[in-house]
Order: sequence, then structure tokens, then C-alpha cells
Amino acid sequence: MAKNFLHNYPDLLCLGKADQYVDEICDMFNQNKIFGGFDYDEAKILCGYMQCYAAPRGYKVMNEGDEGDFMLLVLSGEVVVRKNMDGMDNQYLVEVKAGGVVGEMGFVDSNVRFASCVTTMPTDFAVMTRATLNDLLLQHPRMANKLLLKLLQVMGARIRETVTRLIPEHFGVTK
Amino acid sequence: MAKNFLHNYPDLLCLGKADQYVDEICDMFNQNKIFGGFDYDEAKILCGYMQCYAAPRGYKVMNEGDEGDFMLLVLSGEVVVRKNMDGMDNQYLVEVKAGGVVGEMGFVDSNVRFASCVTTMPTDFAVMTRATLNDLLLQHPRMANKLLLKLLQVMGARIRETVTRLIPEHFGVTK
Ligand SMILES: Nc1ncnc2c1ncn2[C@@H]1O[C@@H]2COP(=O)(O)O[C@H]2[C@H]1O
Ligand SMILES: Nc1ncnc2c1ncn2[C@@H]1O[C@@H]2COP(=O)(O)O[C@H]2[C@H]1O
Repeated sequence: MAKNFLHNYPDLLCLGKADQYVDEICDMFNQNKIFGGFDYDEAKILCGYMQCYAAPRGYKVMNEGDEGDFMLLVLSGEVVVRKNMDGMDNQYLVEVKAGGVVGEMGFVDSNVRFASCVTTMPTDFAVMTRATLNDLLLQHPRMANKLLLKLLQVMGARIRETVTRLIPEHFGVTK
Repeated sequence: MAKNFLHNYPDLLCLGKADQYVDEICDMFNQNKIFGGFDYDEAKILCGYMQCYAAPRGYKVMNEGDEGDFMLLVLSGEVVVRKNMDGMDNQYLVEVKAGGVVGEMGFVDSNVRFASCVTTMPTDFAVMTRATLNDLLLQHPRMANKLLLKLLQVMGARIRETVTRLIPEHFGVTK
């Protein structure tokens, strides 16, 4: 599966399995634990399913309109999300810092990338592919429960943030 | 759990367990099956976890800013989603028809309702509470994963729709 990913990004530096980032990943998944968080041993198992990579500044990890079967957990650094609007390319949507996720939208429904994601500084991330998630669903369904609940919280926060920050103009509200 | 819900909506007509809606619920969960859909028997089990209700036209099933530990699967009818913006109350965001979901945002992270939801016609829905989801997570983790993947797809579609329809003005694009 990692091959699947590297195939499109042959110039990225592979940092190996995510095992060395268990603490970071554990923290990431324990921010809102209303359905029970990950303990260290679970995070370790989850990390065994992911490969990590280091990208330089200005690296496009996702391109709007492309197919893509993976999502990225940002371990350090930052990614900026930009989208083409009618006649105005590359408009800023949001930035995603360490502890955040990008690519989860295409990851869960196999639509093409809705926006482009580019690193704004040297950035390390863990890759989860759809094949990995399928393995996790089969082999560790309860851990998959926690991962998916976490992604739901990420997406909910995204909807709130998008509407709150970007929409007032739609209704003629001046800030 | 159903009590939990009816407590705040004592005037709603309870239609009983969702068992009579297995076909509708099966269809709802089988629209994008990249991780495997629900079969009829699974949908039946899931339906055993939910109660159904009938609301008249103009009924506010969710009020922006309120706490709420449930989400609704719309079985028939329609719900309109509206939000207060600075100085402009009750602005239209979207409508949700049969086969759609509302309230999943607060349901998964226990934040207050981000918008209000009002029926635009007589509307039947199935209620899933956080307690129900907890039971499902414990008793049927694999089915819970299918439910969560479905909710992720709903939310992803919501982000795409919100950005595409409402945001161009933010960037000064005139439609
Ligand atoms: N409005 C938004 N707010 C935050 N992140 C977004 C937004 N739109 C898209 N993204 C992110 O950009 C990613 C582009 O690829 P995906 O569509 O797979 O998944 C997307 C999200 O992770
Ligand atoms: N931008 C949006 N597009 C579609 N539905 C929304 C949007 N914002 C909020 N909602 C729905 O309105 C519901 C209000 O309660 P919740 O915040 O729990 O969950 C919310 C979603 O189901």
C-alpha cells in the first residue's frame, strides 16, 4: 500500500513505519474522547499500519481533481489547502498543522481531490491508504471505530470553520 | 435512549422501532459502498436500535445552540437547515430530504447544534442517540464502522456542497 503512495511521489523521503511517532498519534486521537480514546498499545498497532514521509517546503501532496486513495496525518510542519474557484485559481481555504488530517474526503468516498494541499514548510506526515483502512476494518474493527469517529470530528470542525469564516459574505454581511 | 429524545419533544408521534423501515435504511446505507454496504439482515439489526417519529410541517427538530445527543435519519419528508449569521438570523444553508441525515455534527463531538433544522412538510425520521451508538460500538463494531463510514461520506458531501455553492462570493466571484 505504501508502494501505492510512493508511486506518485517517488522523490519523497520515506521515514519508515509510523512506530516512532506513537506519542504524536496517540495525542492526535485523544483530543475529543467522548467515545473512548486510543491507549498507547492501540496507537502502536495503528502506527504499524502507516508509513511516514518527509516533504520539503512547497511540496504539493494533493492536487485538486486528481484521484487519490490515501489521507495524511500531519506529524510536524504545515499544509495549506487551496481551491480553484470560477475564474480565480488557487484560493486559500485553510491551513492544517501538526495533529491535523488532509485528504480524508476523497479517502472515504473515492471522489477526486476537492482542493490542493501544499506544504508551507518542511513537513512530516503518516500515510493511511484505503487498503490499510480495509485491513484495519477487518483485523481491528474497534480500533477502526475510534479512527472513524476521530475523522468525523475532524470533518465536523471543518464544516463549522468553513461556514463561520467564509460564508458571511454570501449573505451580504460585512465583517 | 428514546426517552432521552422524547423528553424534549413530548408532542411528537412515536412510530415505534425502525424495523418497518428496513428497506429505506438499507438503501440509505448502500449509496456508496466502497467499504462494503449493509445487507438486509444488518440493516434489520441496526433498525432495532432506533425509534421512529412523525413530525408535522414547520416542526423544529433541532435548535441552533442547544445541546443534543442524537442524529436523525430522514425517512420521508424534508428538513431545512438554517443558521444565524451576525446580524442576519435564520439564513438558509441547505435542505435535507428522505435518505439524508441531520444532527450528525453534534452527535459525534457533543458540540452544540451548529444550525437549526425545521421540517418543511410532514416528516418521518429515525433517531439514533449517542447511547445507541455506544451500544452499537460495543455489540456490533463492524456494523458501527459501516454506519460511521456512511456518516463520513455525508459530511464530505456537505463540505463540498457548502464550499461550492456558498463560497464564491467570499472571493469576489460574481455568479
Ligand atoms: N473547506 C475545507 N476546509 C478544510 N479542509 C478542506 C476543505 N476542503 C477541502 N479540504 C481538505 O483538502 C483535501 C483535498 O483532498 P480531499 O478532497 O480528499 O480532502 C480534502 C480535505 O482534507
Ligand atoms: N453547511 C451545512 N450543510 C449541511 N448541513 C449542515 C450544515 N451545517 C449544519 N448542518 C446540519 O445541521 C445540523 C445542526 O445540528 P448539528 O450541528 O448537530 O449537525 C448539523 C448538520 O446536520
